[in-house]
Amino acid sequence: MDYAGRRSRLRKNAPQGDILILSASNVPRNYPAELYPFHQDATFRYFTGLKEPDAALLIRDDGTEILFITPPDPDDVIWTGPVPGPEMLAARSAIRYTANYADLGRYLTENTLWVEPYDFQLKLRLSTWLKISPDQLPSRASRDLGRAIIALRSVKDSDEIAELNEAISLTKRMISNAQAALEPGRLESDILAALLAPAIAKERDQAFNPIVTTHGETLHNSGYGHKIDADDMLVIDCGAESVEGYCADITRTLPALGRFSAQKQELYDAVLKAQLAGIAQTKVPQTTQYDVHIAACRALTEALQAIGLMRGNIDDSLANGAHALFMPHGIGHMLGLDAHDMENYGDDVGYAPGTKRSTQFGLDALRLARALEPGFVLTVEPGCYFIPELIDRWTAAKHLADFINYDAVAKYRDMRGIRIEDDILITTNGSIVLGPGIAK
Amino acid sequence: MDYAGRRSRLRKNAPQGDILILSASNVPRNYPAELYPFHQDATFRYFTGLKEPDAALLIRDDGTEILFITPPDPDDVIWTGPVPGPEMLAARSAIRYTANYADLGRYLTENTLWVEPYDFQLKLRLSTWLKISPDQLPSRASRDLGRAIIALRSVKDSDEIAELNEAISLTKRMISNAQAALEPGRLESDILAALLAPAIAKERDQAFNPIVTTHGETLHNSGYGHKIDADDMLVIDCGAESVEGYCADITRTLPALGRFSAQKQELYDAVLKAQLAGIAQTKVPQTTQYDVHIAACRALTEALQAIGLMRGNIDDSLANGAHALFMPHGIGHMLGLDAHDMENYGDDVGYAPGTKRSTQFGLDALRLARALEPGFVLTVEPGCYFIPELIDRWTAAKHLADFINYDAVAKYRDMRGIRIEDDILITTNGSIVLGPGIAK
Repeated sequence: MDYAGRRSRLRKNAPQGDILILSASNVPRNYPAELYPFHQDATFRYFTGLKEPDAALLIRDDGTEILFITPPDPDDVIWTGPVPGPEMLAARSAIRYTANYADLGRYLTENTLWVEPYDFQLKLRLSTWLKISPDQLPSRASRDLGRAIIALRSVKDSDEIAELNEAISLTKRMISNAQAALEPGRLESDILAALLAPAIAKERDQAFNPIVTTHGETLHNSGYGHKIDADDMLVIDCGAESVEGYCADITRTLPALGRFSAQKQELYDAVLKAQLAGIAQTKVPQTTQYDVHIAACRALTEALQAIGLMRGNIDDSLANGAHALFMPHGIGHMLGLDAHDMENYGDDVGYAPGTKRSTQFGLDALRLARALEPGFVLTVEPGCYFIPELIDRWTAAKHLADFINYDAVAKYRDMRGIRIEDDILITTNGSIVLGPGIAK
Repeated sequence: MDYAGRRSRLRKNAPQGDILILSASNVPRNYPAELYPFHQDATFRYFTGLKEPDAALLIRDDGTEILFITPPDPDDVIWTGPVPGPEMLAARSAIRYTANYADLGRYLTENTLWVEPYDFQLKLRLSTWLKISPDQLPSRASRDLGRAIIALRSVKDSDEIAELNEAISLTKRMISNAQAALEPGRLESDILAALLAPAIAKERDQAFNPIVTTHGETLHNSGYGHKIDADDMLVIDCGAESVEGYCADITRTLPALGRFSAQKQELYDAVLKAQLAGIAQTKVPQTTQYDVHIAACRALTEALQAIGLMRGNIDDSLANGAHALFMPHGIGHMLGLDAHDMENYGDDVGYAPGTKRSTQFGLDALRLARALEPGFVLTVEPGCYFIPELIDRWTAAKHLADFINYDAVAKYRDMRGIRIEDDILITTNGSIVLGPGIAK
């Protein structure tokens, strides 16, 4: 990875002022010495490749680069073994100068550029270094620095694509392992154990807490306690990280018995059509991800009309967001060193200057809407869900009843959820689905 | 679990003033919506049994109990599914009143008692609620409240012992699974995958990040990247949590080929003798854990003298801490809802009022030294390590050369490390090793 090149491009694109990039800190779990498994901040990793906690990079206005790090305590050798010193770490990412992290505060001024950390320990440190109260941080952060970082991180180079492909290959193995373990009577957590094993054996983190659920209609299902019944579908939404921390994000919906009932097959095909329509739209030159979203929702609406769950004029149905009863989320997001890449920088990632998220239900969850450019990597992940509480609310209100056949929907109330997701690279003349093929 | 009884005992033992106990917060990993797997604070769990983040318990001076919690947002149902409301959660732990977590600040006064959180988000919140700067928190925290909590949590009741036994049973299965996977040529991470599978399949957290290493001499080895050679020993130090979050903490040292070389067998037997001597000492009425430490170190010293690595008068050797070259850590710690139980309360857990940690190398790492009482659960975990950097330093300084045969030690320089650990319950007439037997 060309860390020095990335830093020099950032220096060119960022506003005047010293640029501060903080590594993640060690996060206490039970007490200060019992830590969550360390996970490096994506931006620090992007510009240095280093995996050290409690470090910082300062790129001064004149281009001078300094790596701030805590020199190892020789007495810690019995606990940690020998560790590389500051100079060796700086050399690894071609940074010329080093300094002690404890002295970082003395290097910061009112004109230093930084983005507000999401890490609460770093919020506290930054407010101490800058001698301001933590609630002053948001107004002092540099949105322009964030935008300069977004511009770089959004376009993936060939080294990054190789990492993403590798992460998806490992994710394919995870899903195959899970599929081999899938049978009625087992718990979701049994399948989770099979899913994670190939990644643990390669010492790879998960890009996010995996979803492994028979209740796909709960979009962010965090438990794994359900027993799998013969007529269940299992939604697996997961992704391994590559060696350098790039994230896969793949969803497959698997029938417990190896094939779907006729009714579920119809719904699965509807979601698959929506996904293929979304992927086809990513190939259109200068398309926006908003258009990708609408293309997928159009295909889903057509398919649900054919099944008899929806009805009416399709353009009007789409404009009113009637399909959000079945798919209340966005079509996808940027992917890179974070699963929702750069989400800590807010909507500057997914929305062009001067544009804003819609407030329409469903579209309000669309994280990425802007024009797609070669080098962007994003997910296309439509779904079809039967969320009882949402169905009850819309039915009671007869909401958009011109477009929804509520009598039919009532019969599907317990069908739960289906989602299919792949990772797409925008190229100069279209797009490609990254990674090896994963059956869907 | 008798949560209400625990709270009423805390109210009786704590100083005057409203008592505030905070649950853990959700901790961002990559951005605010991508979280580390949630882990509840042990003290909040001890007094409520609740697993909810961003909650609090207030026990007022008059005994009134209030659970502060954020009421679920009805619009979140599509992401989370239906979740229990505040009243249902309060009822689960027999708390009479509920209030909105967002209003907690208004209930706090200068006389509210609390212990400084280790969680940085909570430090920030507490400083906002109390309108003081974060660096004022340590001086405003109530050490007496901490001591009242320690007094309760230190003595485990039969429900807690049952949980600990269950956690150790699962840990035994983890170790068996790892042992079955152990063979030369595999990576430590392959064994880690086997170790974790039974816990993941039961949806159980690890009590701490497991150690699985061929380099046991690095005491807190955090990587799993070494290839296992035929003559390697694998140190596995791990523990599952029980359903209610009680922690096992077991160490076994396994030879890669199923049996030790003669030289390693001698060292293993030395550690085993030290462990059995330590466990025997826990059975002595009114013993201290300091005495347990010394009993184990005495047995280790005797065995290392027999091997020829140590020499000289044993009492003097012990008094000077010569054995710390081979075992630079303490014999063990309290165990309960945390692996190092209550470590966030500092040395009030392990040291009686008026006593202090020794500054002697080795003893300075003894976390628990005080008199043991029925109901205490603690670990006994001696080890023998050959830490090249430490050996080099002591050899160069001829440190305690009356007690150490440096010529012999030089030949053992690459022997690495061995540790054996079990979890012990102090009873009214002795002690018992908790859990099912695990071969050692």
